[in-house]
Amino acid sequence: MSRKDLGVSVKRSDDFSEWYTQVVLKAELADYAAAKGFIALRPYGYAIWDQIRQVLDERFRATGHVNAYFPTLIPESLLRREAEHFEGFTPEVFWVTRAGNNDLSEKLVVRPTSETIIYDFYARWVRSWRDLPVLINLWNSVLRAEIKSTKPFLRTSEFLWQEGHTVHVSKEEADDEVMRILEIYREIIEEYLAIPTLRGTKSDKEKFVGALYTTTLESMMPDGRALQMGTSHNLGQNFSKPFGIKFLGKDEKEHYAWQTSWGVSWRLIGALIMTHGDDKGLVMPPRMASIQVVFVPVYYKDDVKNAVMQRIKEGTDRLRKQGVRVHMDDREEYTPGWKYHEWELKGVPLRIEVGPRDLEKDQFMLVRRDTGERKTVPNQGLEESVKSILESIQKALFDKASATLKEMTRSAKSKEELKKTIEEKGGFVEAQWCGSRECEEKVKTDSGADIRLIPFDSQASGLCVVCGNPASSTVYFARAY
Amino acid sequence: MSRKDLGVSVKRSDDFSEWYTQVVLKAELADYAAAKGFIALRPYGYAIWDQIRQVLDERFRATGHVNAYFPTLIPESLLRREAEHFEGFTPEVFWVTRAGNNDLSEKLVVRPTSETIIYDFYARWVRSWRDLPVLINLWNSVLRAEIKSTKPFLRTSEFLWQEGHTVHVSKEEADDEVMRILEIYREIIEEYLAIPTLRGTKSDKEKFVGALYTTTLESMMPDGRALQMGTSHNLGQNFSKPFGIKFLGKDEKEHYAWQTSWGVSWRLIGALIMTHGDDKGLVMPPRMASIQVVFVPVYYKDDVKNAVMQRIKEGTDRLRKQGVRVHMDDREEYTPGWKYHEWELKGVPLRIEVGPRDLEKDQFMLVRRDTGERKTVPNQGLEESVKSILESIQKALFDKASATLKEMTRSAKSKEELKKTIEEKGGFVEAQWCGSRECEEKVKTDSGADIRLIPFDSQASGLCVVCGNPASSTVYFARAY
Repeated sequence: MSRKDLGVSVKRSDDFSEWYTQVVLKAELADYAAAKGFIALRPYGYAIWDQIRQVLDERFRATGHVNAYFPTLIPESLLRREAEHFEGFTPEVFWVTRAGNNDLSEKLVVRPTSETIIYDFYARWVRSWRDLPVLINLWNSVLRAEIKSTKPFLRTSEFLWQEGHTVHVSKEEADDEVMRILEIYREIIEEYLAIPTLRGTKSDKEKFVGALYTTTLESMMPDGRALQMGTSHNLGQNFSKPFGIKFLGKDEKEHYAWQTSWGVSWRLIGALIMTHGDDKGLVMPPRMASIQVVFVPVYYKDDVKNAVMQRIKEGTDRLRKQGVRVHMDDREEYTPGWKYHEWELKGVPLRIEVGPRDLEKDQFMLVRRDTGERKTVPNQGLEESVKSILESIQKALFDKASATLKEMTRSAKSKEELKKTIEEKGGFVEAQWCGSRECEEKVKTDSGADIRLIPFDSQASGLCVVCGNPASSTVYFARAY
Repeated sequence: MSRKDLGVSVKRSDDFSEWYTQVVLKAELADYAAAKGFIALRPYGYAIWDQIRQVLDERFRATGHVNAYFPTLIPESLLRREAEHFEGFTPEVFWVTRAGNNDLSEKLVVRPTSETIIYDFYARWVRSWRDLPVLINLWNSVLRAEIKSTKPFLRTSEFLWQEGHTVHVSKEEADDEVMRILEIYREIIEEYLAIPTLRGTKSDKEKFVGALYTTTLESMMPDGRALQMGTSHNLGQNFSKPFGIKFLGKDEKEHYAWQTSWGVSWRLIGALIMTHGDDKGLVMPPRMASIQVVFVPVYYKDDVKNAVMQRIKEGTDRLRKQGVRVHMDDREEYTPGWKYHEWELKGVPLRIEVGPRDLEKDQFMLVRRDTGERKTVPNQGLEESVKSILESIQKALFDKASATLKEMTRSAKSKEELKKTIEEKGGFVEAQWCGSRECEEKVKTDSGADIRLIPFDSQASGLCVVCGNPASSTVYFARAY
């Protein structure tokens, strides 16, 4: 493989979609499977998902949640129990019709989401107010047959995610849970993935099938399309009634329970690639990076090899003691130049080069991935220099993405302006909306844009951009992934 | 629910199978799903699996392994590529024949194990000796239709496991990997789960379909049946040839790669329940327990409540600082007696009771789950007392299980003695074997016993117990789960 094959061969600004696919494949995050729509998550990509998992799990645990596992296959009769839910998912489920050489008496679906199988258990587990709340989370994969073309992390027939399913005594408790989770998601996405979000509720048309209401976090990708980052639903009693999830209250009476469900998936990895990546490949925010710092030895004569490697080992040990995730690239079969390219492609936030000159001057050469900036720092105090630069990178990435979000959020006063802005510039368009599904659908037909969210503090201030009737809220339109 | 319903209602010695099921259900480790053969892993059971995962992952990482994720669905053509493998698995796979409303052009199977889908990727990823070794592990679930009756953790249509899949330049490297993993498994099973094992290779009849050879860890359950705890296979070039996993060696020639695969599943949880449990329920080895110590306040008058709870909070904080996993049972809706029963059922290794008398005497009352022994310890030095008792419990459980294993390992000099021992006493029976499949199958037909393992240091010393020809090795027979 030549160095050209190693790197991304198109510019991000020339062909965003091709650039994205090349980054995914060449940075070895994922690869296409033989079966249509499926991908494998390679170790370097898995490490990102694992980091998301660890950080989320810590927060779920701190707020009283516990993990569990439920079956992959769901009997058809359970999936059918909540009618809207079944209608919503049936066009894309995989059907298991045989086991070994025998036809099954009842068909099974590979879970597209686990509400129906979990709630069958909950109906047995919940008896009294003493059993509540139930705060269970699952780390698993779900399958939804993807008929359009595959896009790793964004459009695949199977994806890794977490799904939380909680049961409460009252609507208020469920409301609180919905918002508690949304805030956890916000923290992870903004403070770890370094991606700014807008937050609010979905319109009735866009909410989760079967939910009372859906809250969402939405981000803007550099190509002008919105990406839904995570959702948290109040299911009301819409599932507890058909599934019979009832409890004896402190009042000695039987009540149907209130429920929530919520999830984020590996599309967060897709968002991270698109938001921060550049023409050289991936750019990892330091807090998400499985390798935050890579040491590359630079020498062309063997007589200094030992001294260089010794210095790198010391540096590695010192940084590891401070909790920095360090990799030492001591491969002898590759040149320093090849290594620079490879770690840039993989988005490692900080590269440290060590050569004879650095030994002489008792220094390290630090190279930032995000800006390319080169800077020498004295040997003494390496730990502080590295930690401070990693923090600056984390902040710089978020600030840059925030500026982009701001720039790509516009407003429109008329249907024509809305359509024109969406078509010519993409991004979010803030507009007044009367609340009718008809107007919402008209925008979709005209310009391909959906209502991505209704901000929590949304207030109307004028007339609906579509029908001209008094508006009921300010909303954000965008075309989306 | 009465206290009687809470507890296990049969003695372990009276009905081992019913006792086992009751422990699983009543300790809330798992529950049966609507679909035949499937179970849900409840939070308390998931915590055990999570502990196994953490401890194993740490060791896998330390030996250079990385995690990844591969698709759940495998195209039929891939499963067929290694003929023996296909023959072995096809009677129990779930077939996906439709997606949404459309029949699939190629049927897919829900993975019964992932060799065939992974190796299709490996054929693309491995090019040169520089790409080797590949050391990938997966944490996922696999599905195999269970036609016999369901037994949680031991016989289910879906189970959680880990599967490792490695690629090497030579047979010797693959041999080393097989043994490295077997030793990791031994350490976890003996030193964490506190279950003694026998280790060796499988006979050709019992090896993994498609493997060159299979190594195994086997344990003995108290009802006299063996349980396979984990296996580590050298796949030779049996898969690399049909899948085309080739590399350019340092010699500039193309070679087929050498491979291993290995796994342990949630049946380890089943082994743990059977090995250590008693008439009161589960007994958790301290190193595996998600709750190692539970504090139960004991007071009947409200005036001491604050002082008791204050003392418990202090104790909890002090133990947590020492890394002990502590739970404080401050529920007011249950009596102390109810709580004792519940935590005994759930197998928490150590209970600490705190009442007015303990405050007066500045002491804690410690109750061991394994022996029931009660002991007061002074407030000062609580941390050391608790850590030392937890260590004794861990050791006592292993020692007890080792004594049982020893007692249940017998030898036989003739076919009749072998049959009689298996039928009357169960356990392992050490015997001489000539190496022929015919003799192996004769024993199976006669007594239901298989060759569980051929010890690594096996030497023959006499004549085959079946045919009387010179033996080639000493082996262990047993009936198994």
